[in-house]
Amino acid sequence: MRNIGGGITAPIGFKSSAVACGIKYENRPDLAVITSDVSASCAGVFTTNRIKSAPVLVSREHVKQGVARAIIANSGNANACTGEDGIEDAIAMVGETARFLHCDPREVLIASTGVIGRPLPIKKITGCIGKAVKELSASGSIMAAKAIMTTDTKPKESACVIDIGGTDVRIGAIAKGSGMICPDMATMLCFITTDADIEPAALRRALRQAVEASFNSISVDGDMSPNDTVLILANGMAGNKKIFTRSKAFEMFSEGLTDICLNMAKELVRDGEGATKFITINICSAPGKEDARQIGLAVANSPLVKTAFFGADPNWGRIICAVGSSGIAVDEANISIRINDSHIFDSGRPMPYDEQQLRKAMAGKEIDVTIDIGMGKAEALVYTTDLSYEYVKINAEYTT
Amino acid sequence: MRNIGGGITAPIGFKSSAVACGIKYENRPDLAVITSDVSASCAGVFTTNRIKSAPVLVSREHVKQGVARAIIANSGNANACTGEDGIEDAIAMVGETARFLHCDPREVLIASTGVIGRPLPIKKITGCIGKAVKELSASGSIMAAKAIMTTDTKPKESACVIDIGGTDVRIGAIAKGSGMICPDMATMLCFITTDADIEPAALRRALRQAVEASFNSISVDGDMSPNDTVLILANGMAGNKKIFTRSKAFEMFSEGLTDICLNMAKELVRDGEGATKFITINICSAPGKEDARQIGLAVANSPLVKTAFFGADPNWGRIICAVGSSGIAVDEANISIRINDSHIFDSGRPMPYDEQQLRKAMAGKEIDVTIDIGMGKAEALVYTTDLSYEYVKINAEYTT
Repeated sequence: MRNIGGGITAPIGFKSSAVACGIKYENRPDLAVITSDVSASCAGVFTTNRIKSAPVLVSREHVKQGVARAIIANSGNANACTGEDGIEDAIAMVGETARFLHCDPREVLIASTGVIGRPLPIKKITGCIGKAVKELSASGSIMAAKAIMTTDTKPKESACVIDIGGTDVRIGAIAKGSGMICPDMATMLCFITTDADIEPAALRRALRQAVEASFNSISVDGDMSPNDTVLILANGMAGNKKIFTRSKAFEMFSEGLTDICLNMAKELVRDGEGATKFITINICSAPGKEDARQIGLAVANSPLVKTAFFGADPNWGRIICAVGSSGIAVDEANISIRINDSHIFDSGRPMPYDEQQLRKAMAGKEIDVTIDIGMGKAEALVYTTDLSYEYVKINAEYTT
Repeated sequence: MRNIGGGITAPIGFKSSAVACGIKYENRPDLAVITSDVSASCAGVFTTNRIKSAPVLVSREHVKQGVARAIIANSGNANACTGEDGIEDAIAMVGETARFLHCDPREVLIASTGVIGRPLPIKKITGCIGKAVKELSASGSIMAAKAIMTTDTKPKESACVIDIGGTDVRIGAIAKGSGMICPDMATMLCFITTDADIEPAALRRALRQAVEASFNSISVDGDMSPNDTVLILANGMAGNKKIFTRSKAFEMFSEGLTDICLNMAKELVRDGEGATKFITINICSAPGKEDARQIGLAVANSPLVKTAFFGADPNWGRIICAVGSSGIAVDEANISIRINDSHIFDSGRPMPYDEQQLRKAMAGKEIDVTIDIGMGKAEALVYTTDLSYEYVKINAEYTT
């Protein structure tokens, strides 16, 4: 696997573009279109929030048939909590895109991000779709990445090439945050393209696995925005031998996809609202993988742990309490904790360590926390940020 | 029911005192003793965190016999994550208290709050217990309330008198926060005394009910400190007809106890770290009472909702998303939201309202949010604070 440039237009046969419709922001692109030259296998993972936006409801139906041609996405308005009118607007966007692309509307997927509860300025949007389709380009990835930004401070894209049985296969992605510490309500969008030839069921499974280890390891599952969406299109133009779930190549494709998703997830964390640090929480020796992830997320989401990190304070008391509150049956006497290179807690006992030195290390931009549960063999990595003044500022002053 | 002064020494036959042992703080009382003149029925509710402090483990054993004479409690050190030595220290504190009171050590309950993971300065503490017992006083409530404070800005006590079958019965309490927005890891302690004559099983049930509607409605159950403790002693000296679970008087006693606990819980919220507002979340028309509480806590614990309140922003989008992420199967089309007097969301649709006026109202110190789930008849009240710069400051700069 090798990282390359080009984002979602790095894979063969994909184009994208972006136009400024004036949905909320002035003079910046806010509508992106991504297309495959040929019909592609598709899969999607959506928010588990009970409140689902109109585009999530529409895309969830459309991905079921396993084949798609395009994705249309806007920023500035989430089209969430907008009732029947919202559904009609989402269908209008999809329909207009299909009309210009000469495909079935069910082959168009859709996503939105932005303000909740306001009707979409649908005429502005549908009036711009023709222009967006006209401007589709094989180097349009960065434009689309910029168009889907909300509070993100920079566009996010990634691409790689992997060898599948002697054939080069490319995977590319763009994403937007998040803009938050634990992504409980802001929207996370990620659109992935690949020229791999892969059957829809295998694509769905690979996407689920990749999302679990990436976007779901920076967030609490039950606590997502109404709009969170990850979509993938696989158009087969690389010409590899078709991948099925049981193919040898499945694992290789799956690893490449996970890697791309992880790149994007880490970028979301680094660009989290008010984030001053990137924190990696490594849970090891847990009873099961899901237990490990649950413990990691309990630590990552504790405001007391997050503020301690902001203050460069090696407060292992807060860490162990968060572990204890995770709902997993841990035993204090088995737990060990390491922060960066300092072993500060061993099998239930505080260890002597150089506090000045550790505080200095924690004042840096990256902190690694390793928590050994001492009860099994499973592990999980979870990524998070600290909780800063800036987070409070952004979220207290950000108007609906 | 009538509120009276006097806290835990308002009920007949209770005394308390406090002394300064220099556990962590200089020149302030940090060790409190509470005694009943005669053996009392007792009950306790303890943290659900898997990591439990030594005093929690000891008290949990001692309350099982249903009878106690005294409570000993210290601030400045939590005696948590201290292994076998911590247990020995807690037993030493209990033993020394029993020696001076001439009672069985198992009749002494214990609680600690403060720094985690440091050994108790046990000699300092046991050396002061004789003095504390000597200074026991029928007006000592406020001294004990002050001695258990950590980051609290003021002592908290409450007392009331209720009529049980023509006999005046008193209930008193002291408590300490919390010092946090959602009490996930800081310690909450509450000690309650009553001169009611009530059988231990009835006392246990009344305490459970009271804690559910009060302390557990400002906090997430699975997410408490290793030290959280609520203890009650009932010495029967009021001379009322003994209360059993099936007595008519049980409901009256239970209501009085809930009221005292609710007073204390609200004080903890008002004194939450960095709190600038007191927010009451009223969930109504929910499928079940526990569902209602779970939805209320999801809203109360959302950092995005909390920061919006800090910014006086009527951001119903964040509120409805928190409702959707609670894990309860809600339907957006049934939900209505009211903030103070403004009906801003009705059966899934945003309502027109005077935003300037509502923002002005939200700039005040009290905000009432009513969320109608439209799916049943159950309701719950949950109390919380906003999330301010000050919270981040306190928790980033508060050293272990």
